[in-house]
Amino acid sequence: MKSSGNRPPILLPAKAQYMPNDLRMLSKYWGFNLSLNPNFATEIIPNGTILPQRFLTALEQNAPKYLIPAAREFWKRIWETHQSIHEEEHLKEVAKSIGLENVEKYIEMTKSAKIRDILKQRTTEAVETGAFGAPWFVIRKEGEQNRCFWGSDRLPVVLNECGVDFVGAMKSKM
Amino acid sequence: MKSSGNRPPILLPAKAQYMPNDLRMLSKYWGFNLSLNPNFATEIIPNGTILPQRFLTALEQNAPKYLIPAAREFWKRIWETHQSIHEEEHLKEVAKSIGLENVEKYIEMTKSAKIRDILKQRTTEAVETGAFGAPWFVIRKEGEQNRCFWGSDRLPVVLNECGVDFVGAMKSKM
Repeated sequence: MKSSGNRPPILLPAKAQYMPNDLRMLSKYWGFNLSLNPNFATEIIPNGTILPQRFLTALEQNAPKYLIPAAREFWKRIWETHQSIHEEEHLKEVAKSIGLENVEKYIEMTKSAKIRDILKQRTTEAVETGAFGAPWFVIRKEGEQNRCFWGSDRLPVVLNECGVDFVGAMKSKM
Repeated sequence: MKSSGNRPPILLPAKAQYMPNDLRMLSKYWGFNLSLNPNFATEIIPNGTILPQRFLTALEQNAPKYLIPAAREFWKRIWETHQSIHEEEHLKEVAKSIGLENVEKYIEMTKSAKIRDILKQRTTEAVETGAFGAPWFVIRKEGEQNRCFWGSDRLPVVLNECGVDFVGAMKSKM
């Protein structure tokens, strides 16, 4: 988001006022339990997500079956339980809750040039496709221009481009 | 939008680059024929929409059956045929295409304190509910807090709040 010059929507006062209700309604719609972390603007944004991103990259490279469980756990900490994710201590808590052993090994990897470079390269790749926020979807098809979509609210359109109907939220547990 | 301090998304470079494709995909999804006016940032935004808004207010007060046809015609001019809407000449073209007679009468009304005041009052009312963009939906229910929604992409959520399933785009002609 930073590379694109975009600003988090919560930094605009009218949007900041709107967001908690929007999130409540979306949460009901999708069957989640998300709510706005009261420290989102003062803690989550300034602390960033570089450490968990490097941690996820280390998992993806070395223990890929933990990638999605860990990503969901980070998501839940931010959006459901309002816990921080930017310190090594938090990575250890996430590891514990998903049954990942030898967490110290993956924490060490977050400091390696290799993992940092892979993440940098992927960030550059995303920015080059035009990404300025998340989630960012790219439909790639041989001989065609990439089709890019921003936001979970574009899911009906993404599916439409894939020839599939969007029939609404599953309302099942993630 | 101005009153809220929000900025049109097209003024951010990465979003400006994203929007034409997003609009093309949304257009396909909804079965419209919309595309980004190449002069949107240089002509549509600086010229604003105050005159057509006053014109629509005059119609709503004095010839309500023309309100929706006129609003759709303004929409089509901006999003489909890429014609301007900010001058009296344009109001006359709109009137002609929807079969509205005595257009001069309604143009005169756009200059009256009464019509200007009604529009101002409604703008204030919208801003007071938290509006910072359009479309802006408000669900009002006796004894409950208003529920407000921004953007056509919130339609599934608005319907969910009304107890109705969103089953996708009708793909019929407007």
